[in-house]
Amino acid sequence: MKKTSLDLPSLSQKDLLCTSALPATDIETIFATAKALKAGRETHTDVLRHKRLAMIFEKDSLRTRFTFDIGMQDLGGSAVFMDHRDARLGSRESVRDVAKNLERWVHGIVARTFKHKVLEELAQHAEIPVINGLSDFVHPCQALSDFFTLTEKWGSVRGRTLTFVGDGNNTCHALIHTAVKLGTNIRVCSPEGYEPNSRVVNEAMRAAQDTGAEVTILNDPEAAAEGADAIYTDVWASMGQEDEIEERNGIFAAYQVDEDLMARAKKGALFMHCLPAHRGWEVTQEVMDGSQSVVYDIAENRLHVQKAVLALLIR
Amino acid sequence: MKKTSLDLPSLSQKDLLCTSALPATDIETIFATAKALKAGRETHTDVLRHKRLAMIFEKDSLRTRFTFDIGMQDLGGSAVFMDHRDARLGSRESVRDVAKNLERWVHGIVARTFKHKVLEELAQHAEIPVINGLSDFVHPCQALSDFFTLTEKWGSVRGRTLTFVGDGNNTCHALIHTAVKLGTNIRVCSPEGYEPNSRVVNEAMRAAQDTGAEVTILNDPEAAAEGADAIYTDVWASMGQEDEIEERNGIFAAYQVDEDLMARAKKGALFMHCLPAHRGWEVTQEVMDGSQSVVYDIAENRLHVQKAVLALLIR
Amino acid sequence: MKKTSLDLPSLSQKDLLCTSALPATDIETIFATAKALKAGRETHTDVLRHKRLAMIFEKDSLRTRFTFDIGMQDLGGSAVFMDHRDARLGSRESVRDVAKNLERWVHGIVARTFKHKVLEELAQHAEIPVINGLSDFVHPCQALSDFFTLTEKWGSVRGRTLTFVGDGNNTCHALIHTAVKLGTNIRVCSPEGYEPNSRVVNEAMRAAQDTGAEVTILNDPEAAAEGADAIYTDVWASMGQEDEIEERNGIFAAYQVDEDLMARAKKGALFMHCLPAHRGWEVTQEVMDGSQSVVYDIAENRLHVQKAVLALLIR
Repeated sequence: MKKTSLDLPSLSQKDLLCTSALPATDIETIFATAKALKAGRETHTDVLRHKRLAMIFEKDSLRTRFTFDIGMQDLGGSAVFMDHRDARLGSRESVRDVAKNLERWVHGIVARTFKHKVLEELAQHAEIPVINGLSDFVHPCQALSDFFTLTEKWGSVRGRTLTFVGDGNNTCHALIHTAVKLGTNIRVCSPEGYEPNSRVVNEAMRAAQDTGAEVTILNDPEAAAEGADAIYTDVWASMGQEDEIEERNGIFAAYQVDEDLMARAKKGALFMHCLPAHRGWEVTQEVMDGSQSVVYDIAENRLHVQKAVLALLIR
Repeated sequence: MKKTSLDLPSLSQKDLLCTSALPATDIETIFATAKALKAGRETHTDVLRHKRLAMIFEKDSLRTRFTFDIGMQDLGGSAVFMDHRDARLGSRESVRDVAKNLERWVHGIVARTFKHKVLEELAQHAEIPVINGLSDFVHPCQALSDFFTLTEKWGSVRGRTLTFVGDGNNTCHALIHTAVKLGTNIRVCSPEGYEPNSRVVNEAMRAAQDTGAEVTILNDPEAAAEGADAIYTDVWASMGQEDEIEERNGIFAAYQVDEDLMARAKKGALFMHCLPAHRGWEVTQEVMDGSQSVVYDIAENRLHVQKAVLALLIR
Repeated sequence: MKKTSLDLPSLSQKDLLCTSALPATDIETIFATAKALKAGRETHTDVLRHKRLAMIFEKDSLRTRFTFDIGMQDLGGSAVFMDHRDARLGSRESVRDVAKNLERWVHGIVARTFKHKVLEELAQHAEIPVINGLSDFVHPCQALSDFFTLTEKWGSVRGRTLTFVGDGNNTCHALIHTAVKLGTNIRVCSPEGYEPNSRVVNEAMRAAQDTGAEVTILNDPEAAAEGADAIYTDVWASMGQEDEIEERNGIFAAYQVDEDLMARAKKGALFMHCLPAHRGWEVTQEVMDGSQSVVYDIAENRLHVQKAVLALLIR
C-alpha cells in the first residue's frame, strides 16, 4: 500500500516551539527529510495519510498559513485552519482545554500566537505535537527554512558568517538559536535598545562553545556586514507594533540594507529576508530584487522544511 | 473498490435539526454507527468519498467546527467552511436562495445560526440534509454525543437519572429531547426565570410516557443532584448573551456545580459539560478536572457521533 | 493509475482574467470540458491530483468561493482559502511578492479583488495561472457559466439575443465580451450614466464583426426586451457601492424585470441572474421564481465550468 519509503527517524522532542531545544542532529534530520520531500513532492504523498492538523492563528499569515496547509495535503493528510485574529487563544476557553480537546481529534497543532507562553501551555497540555508558527519570542520554522536554504546554496553552513541587521525580534532570536547549533557565526546589528533578548544571546554564546560558532552583537551596520557570507533583515515593526512604525522608521533609518552595505559583505554574499518586505525601508529595491537575493527560495523552502517537521513529529 | 463495509441503514429524517424529531431507533442507529466509526477511524475512510459538506457558522465554534470538518475528511469527503460571524445568513441573500444554490454543489449542510428558524428554512428549501450545528433553540449533535458517551460508560442509559444544573438553554433543550427518547430520567434545575422552554418540557413529558422516563423541573440544586447518575452544566451566558454576563453571574451563583453538589449524587456519578467551561463560575476546578469528569470524552465523541450522522444522512 | 481519460487541449492563455482575451475556440474547449466534467462528476476525480489552488478573496462570496474550492476537491486536488476581506491585496505585502511566493507552492490562484489591476499584476508576476474570481471590471467565470447554460438550453447561442437590463457592471462587461465571441447578439439597457464602459462596448463592436453579433446599448427596457431570447439582470448596487443603494434604487426603479417585461421577450425566453438577487428590486419574485428562470442552473454550472477552467489551465 505504501507508495513511498521515506526514512523518518525519531526527533528528540515532541514539539517544535524553539530551535534552541533541538539538538543539531534533529536539525540535520529535518534538513535531510526536507531535501527528500522537496525532490519528491508528488512521490511522498501518503506519509501523513489520515492525519489531521489544527492550525490556529492569532495574526495575519501568508507563508506559514499556506505552507502548513498545503504541506499536510501534499503528505496525504489535511489541515483545518481556524482564523483567530479577532481573539486571543484562551479568551473563550482556557488554553489547556483547547489542548485537551484538540488532542482528541487531530495529530498535531500549529499555532501563531502573540504570547510564546500560550504555545508552551498548549504543548504542556496536549499529548500531540505543537509547532510554533510564530510567537512574540521566536520563529523557528523560519530559521530552519533559512538555514536549509543556506545548506542548499553553500553545502555546509559551518564556519560561515550570517549578519542580521535590524530589530532583535522573533526571527532574529530563532536565527541566533539555530546558527550556534549549526556552527554558523552570527552577527546581530541593531540600534541601541532594539538588540535581541540578552538571555537568548547569553545562552547562545554558551551553546556556541560546542560548535565553535561566534555570536556578535553590535550597533554598527558597516562593521556587521564586513566580510559576511549573508546579510539578513526583517521588517522594523513586527505585527502588534503597528503604532510604533513612525518612531521605528526614524530609529532604524541607518540600518537599511542597500547596495553599499552588501558591497561590504563577501563577493556573492546572499541577501535574506523572511518576508513580508518593505522595499525602501529595511531593504532597497535593488538589493531585494537583485541577483544576490534568495528571498523566494527561502519562502519556497518553508513548504519543504515544514513538511519535514510535520512528517517527523506526527508520523 | 470499497475498503470498508459499514452498515448504513436509512434514517427516518432527511435532516438533523432537533433530536425531538428522531425516533429512538434512529438514535440507536447513530450510536451503533458511531461505535463502529470510533473503532475504525483509519478503516472507514471511504464512506463519503467524493462527498462535499458546506459548513456555515454565524458564531464562534471550536468543537463543532473541527469535528465536522475532520469528520468529512476522515470519511474520504471534504468540507468547505464559511465564516459567517460578520453577518446573519439571509442578510446578503435569502436563506432559500442559499439553500437552492448549495444543493447544486454539496451533499449536506451544517449550519450554526442564531435563529433556529433559519435552519428550518434551509432544510425546507434544500433537497440535501441540513444538520444543526447549534441554534438558539437546540444543540442536537451535542446531546447525541452526551448520550453516546453515557452509553459507553454505563452500557445502557435507560432508567438512569441525568441532572442538568444551570440555564435552560439550547443544550438543555437537546438533553431533554434526547433523554425522554432513550428512557433516561432528566432533571433540570435552573434559577427562576431561566427554566427551559415550557413547550419543550411539556412535549417531553408527553414523549416520556412511551419510555417511562421522568422529566422534572426544579429550582433547588441540592434536590436536583440527589441520587443522580450524572450532573451536567453549561455556561451561564450563551453566545449572544454577553451583555447579561454580570447579571447572570449573580443569579446563577447558587447553581455552581462543586464537590458538595457532586457528593449528593450517586457515588461515582459523572460530571458532564458541553464546553467551553468557565472554572470558578458554573463549575469548580475540582469538579471540572476531577476523576468523575468526562468532559473530554464527550468532546472526543463529537467527532465519532457526527461522523455517524454525516455517514447516515449523506451516504 | 489514471482513472479517467479526459481530453485537455491547451488554451491559448496562461490566465483567465477576462473573456475578451479568449479566442472562441478556447471558450468552446472550456464548454466541452465542462460538459464532460458535469457528466462525470464522480469519474473525473484525479485530473488535478496533487495540485493546489490558492484562493484570495477581498470580498464576500458564496458561489465563487464554494465552486472553486469544491471544484479542486472534485478533481483530486485541493484549495487553500484566504479570507482577505479586512485588507486589500498589496497592503501587507506587494502584490508582486504575493505572486512570487504563491507560485512556489501552488499551481494556480483565484482572486476576487476590488481592483482589476491587482489581478493583472498577480498574473504578470506569477508563472502560474491566475483566475479572476470577480473584479470591479469583469466577472469572466460568471459569463462563461451563463453562456454554457445557454448552450445547454438552446444547443447553440449563435444568432440568439441576450438582453441585459440594469447596471453596466462587471457582470455586464463579461457578458458583452463573451457574447460577441460566440456570435450572440447582446443588448444592454441601463439608466443614463450607468451604461457599460464605453471602451468595452467599442471593442466588442469591433470583435462582433468577426462573428456577426450585434451589440446594442440603449436606455429603454421595453425596446431592449422586445423579442429577446433571454433577459438577464443583476443587483443595482454591487459590492463596494453599498452607500449608493438608496440613490440607485430610485434611478433603477424603471429597470425592474417583471412579467410585463418578460412578456415582451420571445415566448419561453429565459430569465437569468448571477445572484445574489433582491426580489422586489431588480427582479420580481414572480420572474425570479417562475418557470422561465434558470438562475440555479447557472449557479450549478459555475462548478462545472470552473472545474473545466481549472483543469485546462493547471493540468
